[in-house]
Amino acid sequence: MSSSQTPLFTALADSIERQIRDEAYKVGEKLPSLREIAALRNYGKNTVVAAFELLVARGLVEPRHGSGFYVKERTVKAEPHDTQSLNGAMNIVWLMNMQLRNEPGQLTVGDAFPPSQWLAGARLDRPHHKVARSGLGTLFRYGDRLGYAPLRQRLVRRLADQGIDAHPSQIVLTHGANEALDLIVRYFVPAGGTVLIDDPGYYPLIGKLRLAGANTIGVPRLADGPDLKELERLLITWRPRLFFTQSLAHNPTGSDLSKQKARAILKLAEQHNLLLVENDALSDFRSASQTRLSALDQLERTLYISSFSKSLSAALRVGFLACSADIANDIANIKILTSVSSSEYAERTVDTLLAERHHLKYLEELRSKLEEATGRAYDLLDDVGATIFVRPERSLFIWAQLPGVSDTQKLAHAMLNENIVMAPGNIFSVNPNNISPWTRCNPHAVLDPRFRRALDKLLG
Amino acid sequence: MSSSQTPLFTALADSIERQIRDEAYKVGEKLPSLREIAALRNYGKNTVVAAFELLVARGLVEPRHGSGFYVKERTVKAEPHDTQSLNGAMNIVWLMNMQLRNEPGQLTVGDAFPPSQWLAGARLDRPHHKVARSGLGTLFRYGDRLGYAPLRQRLVRRLADQGIDAHPSQIVLTHGANEALDLIVRYFVPAGGTVLIDDPGYYPLIGKLRLAGANTIGVPRLADGPDLKELERLLITWRPRLFFTQSLAHNPTGSDLSKQKARAILKLAEQHNLLLVENDALSDFRSASQTRLSALDQLERTLYISSFSKSLSAALRVGFLACSADIANDIANIKILTSVSSSEYAERTVDTLLAERHHLKYLEELRSKLEEATGRAYDLLDDVGATIFVRPERSLFIWAQLPGVSDTQKLAHAMLNENIVMAPGNIFSVNPNNISPWTRCNPHAVLDPRFRRALDKLLG
Repeated sequence: MSSSQTPLFTALADSIERQIRDEAYKVGEKLPSLREIAALRNYGKNTVVAAFELLVARGLVEPRHGSGFYVKERTVKAEPHDTQSLNGAMNIVWLMNMQLRNEPGQLTVGDAFPPSQWLAGARLDRPHHKVARSGLGTLFRYGDRLGYAPLRQRLVRRLADQGIDAHPSQIVLTHGANEALDLIVRYFVPAGGTVLIDDPGYYPLIGKLRLAGANTIGVPRLADGPDLKELERLLITWRPRLFFTQSLAHNPTGSDLSKQKARAILKLAEQHNLLLVENDALSDFRSASQTRLSALDQLERTLYISSFSKSLSAALRVGFLACSADIANDIANIKILTSVSSSEYAERTVDTLLAERHHLKYLEELRSKLEEATGRAYDLLDDVGATIFVRPERSLFIWAQLPGVSDTQKLAHAMLNENIVMAPGNIFSVNPNNISPWTRCNPHAVLDPRFRRALDKLLG
Repeated sequence: MSSSQTPLFTALADSIERQIRDEAYKVGEKLPSLREIAALRNYGKNTVVAAFELLVARGLVEPRHGSGFYVKERTVKAEPHDTQSLNGAMNIVWLMNMQLRNEPGQLTVGDAFPPSQWLAGARLDRPHHKVARSGLGTLFRYGDRLGYAPLRQRLVRRLADQGIDAHPSQIVLTHGANEALDLIVRYFVPAGGTVLIDDPGYYPLIGKLRLAGANTIGVPRLADGPDLKELERLLITWRPRLFFTQSLAHNPTGSDLSKQKARAILKLAEQHNLLLVENDALSDFRSASQTRLSALDQLERTLYISSFSKSLSAALRVGFLACSADIANDIANIKILTSVSSSEYAERTVDTLLAERHHLKYLEELRSKLEEATGRAYDLLDDVGATIFVRPERSLFIWAQLPGVSDTQKLAHAMLNENIVMAPGNIFSVNPNNISPWTRCNPHAVLDPRFRRALDKLLG
């Protein structure tokens, strides 16, 4: 990090932080006054005030009323056991619960899945006898520590198509992309540790970070990727180790990262010793040649996650992580300690499905169905006067503002009376108390006449 | 807890701890000297010394050389991100890795599975078309938040057979018994929090607790259950919230809890506000009428865990937790946040298998094969002069001392050269640096001529 880029107040805060860590100032001790520091170091008073604010934000000092700033006792951070963190994540749990319920007659505009009838083409029933017969010798045990080897081998080829070179030892199969994210949080994020995340962003990840007691900071997501200015400012202020981002088919906005921004992000990551966790769970709905951070970087500063939940079946719970062999090894060890292994049974099923000649044709059909529904959903949303964030040619979600709706949390509650589940924008925000005019809409569900009917009723 | 049962030194330590927490003594402050406290409170000096030792063990005060005892700064506990906790669990990872490897030609005396050919009778290949066809509507989604409802309903009946009354809302299906244990650790155990566990005990659980930075204290396991005297002493000294135990088919000793001890444990749990986590993963290898803590207690102070990994297939990764509806609800929320859901695909497979008329007959055959192998393994171990801890009529593991072997870690390394994987006793201990003369032996593997040959070669 070149110090010329560091604002004065940050440099001052860094310097005081070093003194605190070296115990030049001890726990409980009063720091020199603003005036003393300003005089002593020849800074403007505003610079010193900003530096102190930053130190307070970093949890290192605390103001005591009328008496100055004191070095704070290092506190034990919030932990799940006291249910505080769990409570903090409850609104996320709420939406996840609504989506898991799948009640008959309920229309889930807020979900991010293709309709089940589209997925029937995956023919989950076909490979089963193959799976069971071929695996009789090993199918009763936990399976390989990194996951079923032939599937990892197949994923090496898939990654190569996307321009990512990886050895099978760099791939860890997981219980969905979500276990991959959870393992990364466990490995890299201490309670109170700072991480960056797209804002709006993938809400189950926000929930995991809240559960872990992390200090989660949002990087505003624009139509072509993260806000670079803000990203740089946050890197300087917070010095985070990780940035969780979705380059393609970003959830919830549906936006894709531009190549130019991807290069700039990698440069910043290098300068600020940042690791990038690229969640590419919607990979099957984008092309192999689109810009992925992991392809530009070759898994040096990037950890790549993907999944088969949206294009095959979420009930299989098969996802994976690709990263450096060292990290893969450590992550596999944490996986072993926590859940012993992923399901070889499910992994063999996925491997068999991917091997079927029929599979590529199935994916093409799935994409073209989605493309058609996405286009028609844009038309309908335009027709009701909605504002649409970006318009990818196909997407499992559309990020939209409905006319006259400033608080989609309120809209979601009203729609629930119409038996329609929405995904209000605030849930995707790092600060769930923010009121959001945005909502994430599933294009296929948007086309259901019940949605338009409810909208007309509620919005007049 | 009646104070008449509390030793004097514990009461004194409790009183000083309260003063520290109330900040009557502040961080960094020196406590009165041993002599002063002894004189002031009219205690014997030995009582005061013991109280100070306990406060040091509780992490509240620290001795400074030649100058007395000081109130300690509350430290941030070890976290996985610094890999310290992961390193602490590495020897457990080692054994788990060895067992996951399943290399051709390797004999795994240390594993705890029935041989695969015995499990072939489970006919995993049979139900697949049923699973896939019947589930087409929902099989693509994440599934119910508590797990596949018909399987939970079936488990209600299974629990009733064991004398445990539970409603389906009290059952959470998990990715094996290990996810259930992991969720409980996440929910109840803060970093630095104290938990009790059978010692020797289930090593993947010891690994999880180490990863979580818990203060894990072993309760010695005797042939008829935990050492009650020691359990009571630890409850008074440490005031833990949780005791992880295995009543039946205890891993690694194979021992069963007596009814008399079960009642005494429940009484202690009541007196000391302790929750009991009863891991009954080997349930299918014991009878429904044997003594389970959860049956005596009806899930008030007990959390019951079981699994199908040993009697159907570990690759399915299906286990479950039964507990109070409130705890089940919270645990399900943590499950949602961390892994979204368990695999409905695998859960439907288990449900279909359990429904087959053939299933009970399969289990009977499995038990009788195990019974025969267990008996013959006892004969062989007797023949080589081994000491056997207890002799249940059938067990997936025998806890044995081999003649002349005082350190089974060394034996395990020597056996590895013979391509035989042992499970040395120290791995099952809360303190893995303890040298152990015990080793956990799989009866079917013990009967493999390679084992006897290697023993004869190494022990002469």
